Amino acid sequence: MTATSSARRLVVVGADAAGMSAASQALRVARARGRELDVVAFESTDHTSYSQCGIPYWIAGDVAGADDLVARTADQHRANGIDLRMAAEVTAIDVERQRVEVRHRDGRREHVGYDDLMIATGAEAIHPAWACDVPDVLPVKTLEDGARWRAVLGVDAGSAPRRAVVVGGGFIGVEAAESLARRGLETLLVTRGSEPMAHSLDPHMGALVRRGLERAGVEVVTGSEVGSIDRHGGRVVAACVSGAEHQADVVALAIGVRPRVALATAAGLDVGAHGGLVPDRTQRLGGDPEGGLWAAGDCCEVWDRVLEQYWYTPLGTHANKAGRVAGTNLGGGSARFAGSVGTAITRAGDAEVARTGVLASWAREHGWDVEEVTLDSTTAAGYMPQAEPMSVSVVGERGSGRLLGAQIVGGRGAGKRIDIVAMALWSGLTAADVAGADLAYCPPFSPTWDPVQIACRKLAEQL
Amino acid sequence: MTATSSARRLVVVGADAAGMSAASQALRVARARGRELDVVAFESTDHTSYSQCGIPYWIAGDVAGADDLVARTADQHRANGIDLRMAAEVTAIDVERQRVEVRHRDGRREHVGYDDLMIATGAEAIHPAWACDVPDVLPVKTLEDGARWRAVLGVDAGSAPRRAVVVGGGFIGVEAAESLARRGLETLLVTRGSEPMAHSLDPHMGALVRRGLERAGVEVVTGSEVGSIDRHGGRVVAACVSGAEHQADVVALAIGVRPRVALATAAGLDVGAHGGLVPDRTQRLGGDPEGGLWAAGDCCEVWDRVLEQYWYTPLGTHANKAGRVAGTNLGGGSARFAGSVGTAITRAGDAEVARTGVLASWAREHGWDVEEVTLDSTTAAGYMPQAEPMSVSVVGERGSGRLLGAQIVGGRGAGKRIDIVAMALWSGLTAADVAGADLAYCPPFSPTWDPVQIACRKLAEQL
Repeated sequence: MTATSSARRLVVVGADAAGMSAASQALRVARARGRELDVVAFESTDHTSYSQCGIPYWIAGDVAGADDLVARTADQHRANGIDLRMAAEVTAIDVERQRVEVRHRDGRREHVGYDDLMIATGAEAIHPAWACDVPDVLPVKTLEDGARWRAVLGVDAGSAPRRAVVVGGGFIGVEAAESLARRGLETLLVTRGSEPMAHSLDPHMGALVRRGLERAGVEVVTGSEVGSIDRHGGRVVAACVSGAEHQADVVALAIGVRPRVALATAAGLDVGAHGGLVPDRTQRLGGDPEGGLWAAGDCCEVWDRVLEQYWYTPLGTHANKAGRVAGTNLGGGSARFAGSVGTAITRAGDAEVARTGVLASWAREHGWDVEEVTLDSTTAAGYMPQAEPMSVSVVGERGSGRLLGAQIVGGRGAGKRIDIVAMALWSGLTAADVAGADLAYCPPFSPTWDPVQIACRKLAEQL
Repeated sequence: MTATSSARRLVVVGADAAGMSAASQALRVARARGRELDVVAFESTDHTSYSQCGIPYWIAGDVAGADDLVARTADQHRANGIDLRMAAEVTAIDVERQRVEVRHRDGRREHVGYDDLMIATGAEAIHPAWACDVPDVLPVKTLEDGARWRAVLGVDAGSAPRRAVVVGGGFIGVEAAESLARRGLETLLVTRGSEPMAHSLDPHMGALVRRGLERAGVEVVTGSEVGSIDRHGGRVVAACVSGAEHQADVVALAIGVRPRVALATAAGLDVGAHGGLVPDRTQRLGGDPEGGLWAAGDCCEVWDRVLEQYWYTPLGTHANKAGRVAGTNLGGGSARFAGSVGTAITRAGDAEVARTGVLASWAREHGWDVEEVTLDSTTAAGYMPQAEPMSVSVVGERGSGRLLGAQIVGGRGAGKRIDIVAMALWSGLTAADVAGADLAYCPPFSPTWDPVQIACRKLAEQL
């Protein structure tokens, strides 16, 4: 491929959330400014801009088909003016000559020059040694994974899997377990933590998640890990969990993801303490305006506003926003990524689960002197039929009174209340500020004082 | 009643949210500081500390009985050390001699001296001329009102009302209409506005509320008012709505409330532009530390942080918080009421309805140069079965980019999202700040960008 115009050329590596947000926004901003910009995007798979977070719900049967998860098809991106090449893998970046090497699925190779390069290679599921090249041991990450799950679960009743083991108790593991149980499989979730979601929640909140999973029919084994898989006739028959055999027809792999940075590191680019690329807040890499190197999405670390350091938080929300920031700058505008406060939400059976900010244990490691409060309340006024239990745990800094984080587990309407705290962390508010804030109250929606507010009020008294 | 100790005496007038929050908190703070404090509270009715906001849901049958609405009984307050006198009306305040005149239901009168006086007389439903002393024309405000509604609706089938007219399209009117329709009554809501909730929502959002009511079986007549009531044999038989007769067996009166300040004004105390008492942010009245006069709750105006002026916002949330602030100060501590941003929420059939901050029309009256954006999105990712339509309207100030208000109408999970904006207004954030914030996302709970965020992003582009 040779340059066909004098326009500046942006090459995008990876056509999912971050890459295509950047591509679309760059074109939009450039057009608004009357700038010429060629955008070429390379995607190694057959899919663009889809919702990875929707995969567990596709497996569960909530989502009719893969097409529903695709926010924008390749053709839609092309109609928007992006020269999108599918099944085309970027195999090398030559930062000196400002070009990439591309291998097409038909074996053809080419070099493509760039003025700016957007690295949006995402993350990859971590595979333990026993999981490599074992059929019926499937991650829950890509659209291809989802399609394999659908195929495995949809086979004729005689050989359809009846027992599933989910390895990993984080967000994806919990979502996968819930989905498989809803599909009618006997489901066992195995986690190394003392409770599920040990990287995100304190154990006493994780215990509420466990109970939600158990009510949904998921068996949970904590403090354990899968050491090996037994196979018979090429099919999984059992998982060995901390020495004990558990029958299994299919295994979901959800022990985490890591930034996919091999391409970048092979080109000599640096990674941060968590293994991800570390762009600045404009999403530029290496601080070199001449180099034309940019990155966003799950291959990057993200600025954490509470911890005031980079952290690995691979989420579609950040990928979309950071991609858009990169695109604005690439199109000739000016934008900065505002960062994360560590907000996340999911569902574990009938339990809504959400968190933001830091746990008390992290804060203490960080050298903060903190207090925490856990409160049991209800999602609606206690006398209303909608009222379901909800627990809120909040942590704040002594002295300054600053709120540092929160966790919520509860019934319908509990989870999105985490946004109250996310907004408070965003502005660096104190627990007392939140206790005094003017939140929405009406009996079907909340007790007179929102449970988040009562927890913050009690915390403020302790701080 | 004569003084029996050398302790400072706090007299509280009105034993609902504000008064009893103040009384309880004053005792608590005083005890923690080793101070002696006598607290005497007078309540003219037979009820303490109950949820007025729950009355429509009691009428609807969601709440089993009046007891469920009572947060604390008189006996519980007494057990806490408050000398609570029920059925005892304060008929005069003598600010010079620092004493009140009390009339007991048995006709007995007495004078009671105070060091500090907490005025928490609340609000009263506004009655038009045609509604005075007409049976079957009932407000939806007090526990007594609720009991009368329950009695009216619960009579034997032969004479049970079949048709209701609700007068007033504000929050209470909408809640009453929904409740009566759910009880199976043919319900007509009459509002002067071009759409329901004209004091709280723009007409295009009010139209969504109307449709929610209509889906719930409520007929809505806009731009009209009830001019008179026809009676037969002492019972209501029809309401005359802008000249047209509508058959009615019972009429709900919900054209608003006003601060109950007759006692205070008779004592020479001033009211503000909206007719309420205007305590300072410590809840003290008149700025005179010697006078010992305090007030909180629905008899007061409330500091609006967005408008930066006092406003009449009679809500239980403010009453509770301001009462608590007063109590802290009365007990020897130090607290300031942080104010309101105008947040409110309710339900109109299957529509959740919420608002905060100012409408564009108010902002323009205030002299602000504003832009507004209305966005149609969904409560969950569009491909999920939980996804229901939701509309968000946001308004912000040109130049500064500051967010000034929002309205939300939508399906399950839409309404409490208003707290995102309430928190943003609390901190004076810009629309761009909210667009960049780290809110909770997972397909069952939200699109990747929360609808509130998309609306703010579009608004930020216009500002």
